[in-house]
Amino acid sequence: MDAPLYWFRMTGIVAFTLSAMLAMAPRHVNFFGASVLGIITAVGGGTLRDLIIDVPVFWSTDLDYIWVSLGAGLAVFMAQDFFSRENIYKAILYADGFGASLFAIEATDKVWHLAFGLPLGPILMGTITAIGGGLIRDVLAGHPTLLVNRELYAIPILLGCSLYTALLTYLPAYRLEFAIGCGLLIFSLRAAAIHWSLTLPEWMIMKTKSE
Amino acid sequence: MDAPLYWFRMTGIVAFTLSAMLAMAPRHVNFFGASVLGIITAVGGGTLRDLIIDVPVFWSTDLDYIWVSLGAGLAVFMAQDFFSRENIYKAILYADGFGASLFAIEATDKVWHLAFGLPLGPILMGTITAIGGGLIRDVLAGHPTLLVNRELYAIPILLGCSLYTALLTYLPAYRLEFAIGCGLLIFSLRAAAIHWSLTLPEWMIMKTKSE
Amino acid sequence: MDAPLYWFRMTGIVAFTLSAMLAMAPRHVNFFGASVLGIITAVGGGTLRDLIIDVPVFWSTDLDYIWVSLGAGLAVFMAQDFFSRENIYKAILYADGFGASLFAIEATDKVWHLAFGLPLGPILMGTITAIGGGLIRDVLAGHPTLLVNRELYAIPILLGCSLYTALLTYLPAYRLEFAIGCGLLIFSLRAAAIHWSLTLPEWMIMKTKSE
Repeated sequence: MDAPLYWFRMTGIVAFTLSAMLAMAPRHVNFFGASVLGIITAVGGGTLRDLIIDVPVFWSTDLDYIWVSLGAGLAVFMAQDFFSRENIYKAILYADGFGASLFAIEATDKVWHLAFGLPLGPILMGTITAIGGGLIRDVLAGHPTLLVNRELYAIPILLGCSLYTALLTYLPAYRLEFAIGCGLLIFSLRAAAIHWSLTLPEWMIMKTKSE
Repeated sequence: MDAPLYWFRMTGIVAFTLSAMLAMAPRHVNFFGASVLGIITAVGGGTLRDLIIDVPVFWSTDLDYIWVSLGAGLAVFMAQDFFSRENIYKAILYADGFGASLFAIEATDKVWHLAFGLPLGPILMGTITAIGGGLIRDVLAGHPTLLVNRELYAIPILLGCSLYTALLTYLPAYRLEFAIGCGLLIFSLRAAAIHWSLTLPEWMIMKTKSE
Repeated sequence: MDAPLYWFRMTGIVAFTLSAMLAMAPRHVNFFGASVLGIITAVGGGTLRDLIIDVPVFWSTDLDYIWVSLGAGLAVFMAQDFFSRENIYKAILYADGFGASLFAIEATDKVWHLAFGLPLGPILMGTITAIGGGLIRDVLAGHPTLLVNRELYAIPILLGCSLYTALLTYLPAYRLEFAIGCGLLIFSLRAAAIHWSLTLPEWMIMKTKSE
């Protein structure tokens, strides 16, 4: 096991779980349902990816992903006030962006090495891994998904996964350097979006049919 | 074939189909769409489970599950008034709880014997089998899912599947006895929830962020 | 490769993408999200089918499906006004019906030859292939799905797939003729529904529980 990578992953899982659960608070969801939605957010994207590329779902051979998500859910149940504090919640959002960068790049790398649907496969699977869990959560919670709102979340991920796929294809020797670089690119864009509350510009919004 | 088990299963399929379809009536869904939602409710959870544990979907080798669900849909089309009667509808709700108990425990048992992600795998898959179809139905029908409302439905299932997994692990010799016992536990809790209209207590509901 | 069939398929993919994206315009979805929803609509049904019958997802070995859908999305971004014109939009709706007929019959044929869950398997998989992408799109976009509205979309497909399965079973020698015939049947019914704005009749709508 790659020790630092392991802790980075678990940080991402905790952040995905916490941000998902805290987003449920204003809608008075019960802690049990919120915890289930937290776990789905944490592992749903990777599960979807593994189903599509037809490999065993990743958490079935490493249940730490689920245990850690369960633990984070319990922590929210016991100390919701603490996690809801403005500065703690902000930190969770950044950690969520970190997790999305990590899972996106790891998945792109995994799928590229499986040579699944090159070159689009790794890009699509990287993106699905990072945002799929959140999409399933929003659908199950009756919340508008990020595909229809103006949040700047998926585009940085798609950019990073595309760039990483291109670099792997032409310069495979620098795998680790590129992985870190593209992960940082996604994280920086996402952090900027959080910090400055960036949204998609007006010209990216569809107009109503004028007829 | 295990004759009584077969009839118990088909009872569960009929109950899942009927309860799903009748829940669509107040929203003026058409019978065709309602029947499709009924089938999805009846077999959706087990399908999801089989995709995740990567075995052939159960109904592909035993189409009775689909035929019986189709037949139940036809029956609602021909006699909606009958099935909507207060006492008949109540009986269907209890039968639905019976089906959920049966499918949850059967799935837990199946997944435990496949040694998939022990010990969490059987618990998660048992729960997904019992509630997954209903979740997909609610999402497709634009209805709030049971994860965000206060209904007491998933927690008894999770309890029963957890207990059964623990018992199987430590005392595998009493498989049948434990299966029946845990199934009855789920059914009793669910029946109590229906009879007394129990909902989740206030302390299980998330508070709005208090800043 | 079967050249005309290839072009028919790509026409269907373009039509699925365009009709999905243009349906997002009144809700002011951004072009990126709309393009993702367009791709999901175009390949989602077939992906679902391949997961259930457990074969490699079709687009992983022929990325043209995704590239063409991406290209159609770019075209909408660059010329939304053109595609929104009344007569162009009408043509896209008919092409969408054409795509649904083609994908439904192709899938029924594929699944029948795999002998998956005969005789219901091919019918269910043909229908899921044609409407599954649209269902996922509507769910992700927070739009009522065609299962709960009165649009005449799924029933012609189910009829055509059922008829084709029956004919293949009893007269397998006329495979191509029957495929074309059943495809035309679906398309004709769908075109009639578009032309005369047909909806499901009143007697197919569930009544509110009267008790």
